[in-house]
Order: sequence, then C-alpha cells, then structure tokens
Amino acid sequence: KNRARLLIRCPDQPGIVATVSQFLYEHGANIVTSDQYTLDPEGGQFFMRIEFDCPGLRDKKADLEKDFTPIAEKFNMHYDVRYVHELKNVAIFASKEPHCLLELLWEWESGDLMANIAVVVSNHEVVRDMVESRGIPFHYIPANRDIRSQAEAQQKEILEQYDVDLVILARYMQILTPDFVEEYKNQIINIHHSFLPAFIGANPYERAFNRGVKMIGATSHYVTNDLDEGPIIEQDIGRVDHRDDVAAMKKIGQAIERSVLARAVKWHLEDRIIVHGNKTIVF
Amino acid sequence: KNRARLLIRCPDQPGIVATVSQFLYEHGANIVTSDQYTLDPEGGQFFMRIEFDCPGLRDKKADLEKDFTPIAEKFNMHYDVRYVHELKNVAIFASKEPHCLLELLWEWESGDLMANIAVVVSNHEVVRDMVESRGIPFHYIPANRDIRSQAEAQQKEILEQYDVDLVILARYMQILTPDFVEEYKNQIINIHHSFLPAFIGANPYERAFNRGVKMIGATSHYVTNDLDEGPIIEQDIGRVDHRDDVAAMKKIGQAIERSVLARAVKWHLEDRIIVHGNKTIVF
Amino acid sequence: KNRARLLIRCPDQPGIVATVSQFLYEHGANIVTSDQYTLDPEGGQFFMRIEFDCPGLRDKKADLEKDFTPIAEKFNMHYDVRYVHELKNVAIFASKEPHCLLELLWEWESGDLMANIAVVVSNHEVVRDMVESRGIPFHYIPANRDIRSQAEAQQKEILEQYDVDLVILARYMQILTPDFVEEYKNQIINIHHSFLPAFIGANPYERAFNRGVKMIGATSHYVTNDLDEGPIIEQDIGRVDHRDDVAAMKKIGQAIERSVLARAVKWHLEDRIIVHGNKTIVF
Amino acid sequence: KNRARLLIRCPDQPGIVATVSQFLYEHGANIVTSDQYTLDPEGGQFFMRIEFDCPGLRDKKADLEKDFTPIAEKFNMHYDVRYVHELKNVAIFASKEPHCLLELLWEWESGDLMANIAVVVSNHEVVRDMVESRGIPFHYIPANRDIRSQAEAQQKEILEQYDVDLVILARYMQILTPDFVEEYKNQIINIHHSFLPAFIGANPYERAFNRGVKMIGATSHYVTNDLDEGPIIEQDIGRVDHRDDVAAMKKIGQAIERSVLARAVKWHLEDRIIVHGNKTIVF
Repeated sequence: KNRARLLIRCPDQPGIVATVSQFLYEHGANIVTSDQYTLDPEGGQFFMRIEFDCPGLRDKKADLEKDFTPIAEKFNMHYDVRYVHELKNVAIFASKEPHCLLELLWEWESGDLMANIAVVVSNHEVVRDMVESRGIPFHYIPANRDIRSQAEAQQKEILEQYDVDLVILARYMQILTPDFVEEYKNQIINIHHSFLPAFIGANPYERAFNRGVKMIGATSHYVTNDLDEGPIIEQDIGRVDHRDDVAAMKKIGQAIERSVLARAVKWHLEDRIIVHGNKTIVF
Repeated sequence: KNRARLLIRCPDQPGIVATVSQFLYEHGANIVTSDQYTLDPEGGQFFMRIEFDCPGLRDKKADLEKDFTPIAEKFNMHYDVRYVHELKNVAIFASKEPHCLLELLWEWESGDLMANIAVVVSNHEVVRDMVESRGIPFHYIPANRDIRSQAEAQQKEILEQYDVDLVILARYMQILTPDFVEEYKNQIINIHHSFLPAFIGANPYERAFNRGVKMIGATSHYVTNDLDEGPIIEQDIGRVDHRDDVAAMKKIGQAIERSVLARAVKWHLEDRIIVHGNKTIVF
Repeated sequence: KNRARLLIRCPDQPGIVATVSQFLYEHGANIVTSDQYTLDPEGGQFFMRIEFDCPGLRDKKADLEKDFTPIAEKFNMHYDVRYVHELKNVAIFASKEPHCLLELLWEWESGDLMANIAVVVSNHEVVRDMVESRGIPFHYIPANRDIRSQAEAQQKEILEQYDVDLVILARYMQILTPDFVEEYKNQIINIHHSFLPAFIGANPYERAFNRGVKMIGATSHYVTNDLDEGPIIEQDIGRVDHRDDVAAMKKIGQAIERSVLARAVKWHLEDRIIVHGNKTIVF
Repeated sequence: KNRARLLIRCPDQPGIVATVSQFLYEHGANIVTSDQYTLDPEGGQFFMRIEFDCPGLRDKKADLEKDFTPIAEKFNMHYDVRYVHELKNVAIFASKEPHCLLELLWEWESGDLMANIAVVVSNHEVVRDMVESRGIPFHYIPANRDIRSQAEAQQKEILEQYDVDLVILARYMQILTPDFVEEYKNQIINIHHSFLPAFIGANPYERAFNRGVKMIGATSHYVTNDLDEGPIIEQDIGRVDHRDDVAAMKKIGQAIERSVLARAVKWHLEDRIIVHGNKTIVF
C-alpha cells in the first residue's frame, strides 16, 4: 500500500497548509483526505492530519522524511508520518468479563481492525480459549493490588517481546502504576463503564442505579495517572428506566462499552486522534 | 371529561390488583391504561397508576373516594385520585435565558401542556413581553443571594395567590431555601444543564468543555435541598466534538434542555411520576 | 421456576381486568408485571399481557387452564399461557454473512437469550464451525430459487425433528414459499437491512447509497408472503455521510442489524409481542 | 468581518490543494477550516470548502477574484467565493402549521441563523401576526392546485423584489411548477415529514401509522421536479410505539421536523453544502 498519514502540530501561522501541500505535491503525493483545527485562529496551536497516496512510497520514505525536516524546523512542528502498511502491534489486557475482548477479536477477524493483535494478557484463565483458538498468544499473569509490581514486570517484558505499540484495557479492572503509564503515554486505551466524569472509580452501575439516572454510558479514554481522568476519546449512552436493576444496567452497558471501545481503538489505529493536554482532537 | 387517574403505593401483597380493578368495575369505571411496578416481588413496595374513564365522574367523585377508603386502609395504601379536567396551576420561574420558558409557552399554546400557566416570575425584565403578550400575569421579583428571604416571601405570596400546584424552574439560576423547598416538596421541577451527576453546580458547559467530554446533556429533576441531587425525571444528551467551544456547547445544550424539561413537565402533569426516595418511577 | 405469562386478546368490555386479576388471586398467583392496550376505548380490541408467579405452578397448570376456560368463553378471548421454564426451540437460518448469527449465539452463550437453540440451517458451509464448536447441530441444505421446494422439504423435516417453535432468518437471503410461511405464521422473524418501508427488496445498502440518505437502518419483522411487508417488531438507524460508500454503509448497518434482530428475538421469547393485523403490539 | 468561504469543484488531479493554499497565502489569507472530498481517488470529482480570514477583505475582493481566474481555468474548476458579511436574503413559505416557521424565526431572533429573513409568504393568514410582530414583511398569497400559475407569478415578483437567495418551504404543502423550481435550482429547501424515501407524497404520518413502523422521521432536501426525490440534506428520526396514534405521531414528528429543517438551513447559510447529482456533500 502506498498510503501514509502526516500528523502535524505547531503554533498557528500563515503558510503552513501552502508549504505542506506544496511539499507533498513536489514529492508526487496525492492528498486523499485532510483535516485541520486551530485552537484559536489568532495565535493558538494548529493541528493537521493529512492522508495521502504516494506511488512507490516504500522507496521514497527516507527521502520524504529527510526533505520534510527543514519545513518542520521552520514552523516549529511536532510531526509524525505513519505508514498504513506498517500495522501497529496491539496487546489486549483482559480480566474475567470477556465482552470487550470478544468485540475486538470479532472486529479483527472481520478485517475491521487494521492492527496486529500480538498478544492477550489476563489475570484470569477464562478467556484463554477464545484467544488461543484464534491463534493469538495468551499469557496468564496473576495480578492484584499486592503483587502489582511483579505483575507489571512480567507484563512489560511481554510488551517488549512483542514490540507493542498500543495497550488496550478491555475491562482489565487493575490499576497500573505511574511508571507503566509513563512508559506507554497516550498508548494505553481504557474503557470505563460510565459516562465520565460521572461515576469515576469502582462500581459505576451500582452507583448509577442508586442515583436513579435515566441513562447510562461508557467512556473510552487514554490512561493517565489520575484514575478515569485521562483524555476522553469517545462516549456513548443508552436509556434505562426504573424497571432496570443493576444486572439489567450491566447488560445494557456492555453493548455500549463494546461499541465505544471498538470505535476508540479504530480511530487510534487510523491515526485520527491527537492528544492535546487533557483533551483529544479526533479527525 | 370523565377521566381520572388513581395512583397507589403500598407494601406488595396478594390481591391488590384484583381488589382495585373490582372496585373500579363495580363503580362503572373502565380502565384505559394501567401500569404497575414492584421494587422487589418478595416483600417490596408496590406502585400502580391506573387511568380510567367513568361516565358521570363529577357526580360520583365523593362516593368513589369514600368507598375507596376501606380498601386503602386494608392494604395500607398511600393513594391519590387526580381528575383530568382539574388542570394544575403552574408557576414558571425564569431568569435571563428564555429558551426553556419559550418552549413551555409554545407547548402550552399548541395544546400539548395540559395545565393552567397561572403566573411567570422572574428576577429579570427581559421575558416580560413574551409572557404578557400571551395573557399570562408576569411578576418581576428581584432575587439574588443577599435578598433571598425577601424574594421568597414575595414569591410564596404569589404562589398562594394563584393557588399554584407546580413550580417550574426554567433556568431560574437562583438557589431556593430549605423552607421553600419543603413547602413545595416534589412540586418543584428544575432543569440542570448537564448530564447529572456529572457537573453538579455552576457553569457545567465550561466544565464540560474543560474536561473534553464528547457528549453534553441536560437533566430534569425535582428540587431537594441537596443542590442538583434531587430525584431525576428525565435526561438526554447531544454529541459535541473538539470544534465545539463553550458557546457552541451552550447552543447544542439549549435544544436538549428545552426538550428534556418539556418532557418532564408533561409527565408530571399527566401524573405519570411517582417519587420514591431519591428516585422516580415514570409510568 | 414458577413464573408464567398470560396473553389475552378480546373485544374491550367492562370487567376484564377485574375478572382476570381475581382469577389469578384466587389461584394463589402474584402479578409481577401487567400491560394492557386498547385499540379504541369505545369498542375496540383489548390486549393484555400479565406475568405472574405462582408457587407450585407445575402441579397447578392443568387446573389453572381448566378454570380459565369459562372466563375466556365469557369474554370471547383468544388467550395463551406460556410457562417461563418451557424454553422455546429455536432454529436459525443463516447464509454467508455470519454477523447476525454470531450475535445471537453470543447472547445465548451469555445467558441473555432464554431459548433452546435447537439447530442452525444454512445454504453455505462457512458458518458450520462456529455453530458446531458450541455444540449446536448444523445442517447444510443447499438452497436457491431453482431448488426451493426440495430445500424447504428438507428444512421442514428438520424443524419437525427438533420441534421448532421459532425460526430466525439471520440474513438468510432466500425467499420462503407461501406454504412454509403459512405453517409457521408469526413464528418466523426476519432482519431486513433497511429502514422499512424504504428499500424493500434486494440490495438496500446500494440503493441507500444511490439515494444519498443521511441515515441507514434495519428492521426486524415477522415474515408474511408479501416481501418485507410483515408486521414490524423493531427498527433502528445509524448516521452516514457522503464519505460512506456502500462498503462503509454495510459495516455500519451490520452493527444495527445485529442489535435490532437480537432485541426482536428477545421480545418474542419473552412473549412480549402480540401480532394484530399487520402491526405488532410490543409490551 | 474579514471572513470568506471558497467552494471548489473540479476533476481530481495533483496540485490542487498546493496551488489553492499557496494562492491564499500569497494574498494574506489565513485558512480557518478546510474540508475536501474526492468521489474516487483515481479520476473522480474533487470538492473543497475553505473558510479563510483575510484582513481588509472588502478592498481585496476584486483582486482576489481576478487573480483566482487563471487557477480556476487551469484546473477546470467550478468555484464560488462567499463573503460571510454578505447575508443571504431568505424567503419562508408557510402554510397553516406554524411549527417549522416558528423554529426558524426563533433561531433567527437568537442570532443562530446568519441570514436576512426578507419576507414570509403564506397561503393562509394564520401566521401573519407572528411574522409581522417581528418586523418581517408578510404576504398573503392564496394558492392551490387550480391557481398555481397566478400564485407563482405573484410569488416570483416578491422573490425578485426582495432579491431572495434562498426559499424555505416550512411545511408549505403546495407543489411548485417546474419553471419555478428551475429558476431557484438548489435554492429551495423543503422539509418532508417522513424518513425518505419511505412515505413519499401525502399523509406520511397516516401511512407510517398504518404500516406499523417503530420510528418516524423527517427529511430536509433541495426541491427538484420529482416530488420528494431531491438531494437530501439532513434526516432524523424518533421512536414511536403501538400506543402512538396518528395525532401522537404528528406531535413527535413536529419536533423532528423543526430541528431537521433548522439544521439544513443553517448548513446552507454557512455554505457547507455542495450538491452533486442527486446527493449532497455536507462539509
């Protein structure tokens, strides 16, 4: 595939689009889609995502990146080039409840998750079969509050072994240490089973039930060291009424969790998300 | 109109439905719609709403209510009979932002709000014209933190003068004292411009923007003395993205506030809501 | 389990609820939930669904049904008693696209589909593995326009062999003959991949794309001999825009199809649906 | 205001974005937002909308447009420059049901409809007051099947008198002649009270009720000479159930019609819509 994505962030200033599009044109690239956003038209940050096709991309990679360096310097850009044919290596962390893991496996099997699911890690054995039957390596690593550092040591080894680019917490239910989070900054996606910032922390469905809300939700976000406070990628909700007890809410919620996490992961894999402070720009 | 509604709450026990429906049958009433709910089939509270037609209802009222007394006593019922032809007297409290007030006036003009809008009270003059041009009395009562008790004294007088059954806070933005709230328990409906329990208190759109949520919402609830903690009647949400600043969120939110408040008010007027603890049962 | 459901349909007239609830009370049954609907309060059809618990239900069944006969005769009722412990036998007909079948299997595995999935029939081999690996019998029966009657003969034999109560067409894509449909009247549920009555017939996504709609949908309905004209059980929609080609619409649509069919099947299994003419009443 | 929008349509080819953005940069314009779409990356039509700020825009207009001509010729472009400070003149055609007209007037009063509502035309007097009380000219022009050409003659005169750029059919309910439609091609927006292509033509709510659908919708589209077949701009839906009769559906539908039409009009006024064949691209 000759498709790549250019992600740019820099102070807003005249001439960025002209310069970048001229650069691509001169290197024989055709812009397929382009999105931009400025925090503040007068002096804010500028963000851009360009998806382009470029015949013979593999051979031109080195030249493209070298030639772009002076442009990046001139405009003081942070930038990234992502090549669509270079699939990201993904690790999924799961626990006992398999619905989010299953949804991801299913999307992956039907070709909708353009990634290499490199490994699944769980602190329970229950999901081993559904993982291994699909030819994906499974690692059982016991984990709880008391053995967190041991567990993370093993997990990090595995992430390095499989050269993992993205960790998905598919209802993993264990808190990660600041060290771990720092090492995979903006590379860990979690699904929280509430409409954040409502019901941060444990047992959101119980608390939603007790509060008597008329809708429940789910939120997918990047993990930071503030519990459930990381940059939100996607949210969705579903209706409940007085007849729905906690078990019914969980059922309704699971369908929402599945689709919210799958969308967030897909957008990450398509390089659509730019994290800015505690927010996301989703192109 | 010969239509009435019977609202019942009592400990669940065998024979309630049989007894009540037999009572209605014997009094010549035809059940139009009936809803029931039990908190716990084994020993919980039982709730019921029956809407019935009864030819010659006005003349039978006294008999109906007298004859029901022994049934209510036997089953230890709290109950209410509401006659559809007896419109509730409604007071709307508004502030500077007119969108929720306007929606209610509009619904009322088009015959969808079966109530008598007796009076509109505001601490700003801006909405006077749209109220008086519709023939509804308008009272300007200055209100803020420092003159709360004086303002409420005037407001209470007006509520008594117009024999008000329901107070709607249509983005009124002033906190009511515990005395006031106590006097109109489960008779004050507020619209809060967030998806509660997220963003309790002031400036929810600003806080939603700062948190980077992907959806904003509105919540209609009965007012209690815990700010934004009263029984939720209805909620709804709308999508936002990184392009939406606080002003855009307010716009999107206003449409949600309008419809959520209007639905909640309509359900109250149709006697569909039973408050149980800090929750609502909406039949 | 001592739970059952009573489904009633009769001309509206005074005393139905009183009589039926008295009957249940006298037989020691406790009403768990009750829904009713009248087409026209003055002389229309009356529909009712009562879910009740009755200790020792298995032993009382014969008595209950016998004792109800005179009531049914008096009110000229069509009625049904369904016992929750008697699971319905379900046959799923599938074709090449497995997403709807998979959703049903998944719901069933997680305990949300209270039925006995007796058999899966398909005119393609692709889904055999996912069926047999779950211990469900699979039958490959070639089917197309030219061999319809042979195929249906085989299918009917299987349906009889497994004593099937409900046939689910999970994107089966073959038209059934009037004979077949007649034999399983209101017992065949189909999922059509459009928001009916838009795009009846073949290739709805292509036609939705060509029409330039901004939303696509799915519809679950009972099968009649008018193609895609049977009583609608449930519908839902999703947003699309000009960037979505037919393939993207199919993907978005599949998620809708999955959930719409699953909801319709669940409601059927819970005896919530009453077919009246070409419409459904869903309690 | 120094803001303008450049709308481009041309055969896709290398260098378009580079050339256009270079042009804007050289003329001191800063791109605020930019959207593009290609029907087919290999040889299809290319569509682009650029919103830009340009200090001293009024004085530069003539130069900008002159200097762009050779670019447009080189790439074989259809293009338009729209200046945000030049408000469009809008005529609203209404009939008896005022809800869509009212929504537009309301949005306009609250500053959300950036247009000059030049005139309201109706074949009924009922909406005169709500129009004139807002200082907008109102013209009563009787219209029905038999006097169509006379009515249109008067209407055209008024449209010319007020130099109208956009005609909004806010539930106008009269069919326009091909002549009229041709003269205002892609400048007449209609709201149809169904989810098109379902229920084309008259009485969609009655037909939706008779079909037993579980959702009803509304569709805003540009008017062409094929009834309800013009390019769709926006659609939305709402849930209904068996309890909703035709009157209830109309009520639910009116809220949908209001918001769908208002969104479509806003997008048109913001020059976000490009009509391509029988479809719209909405940037």
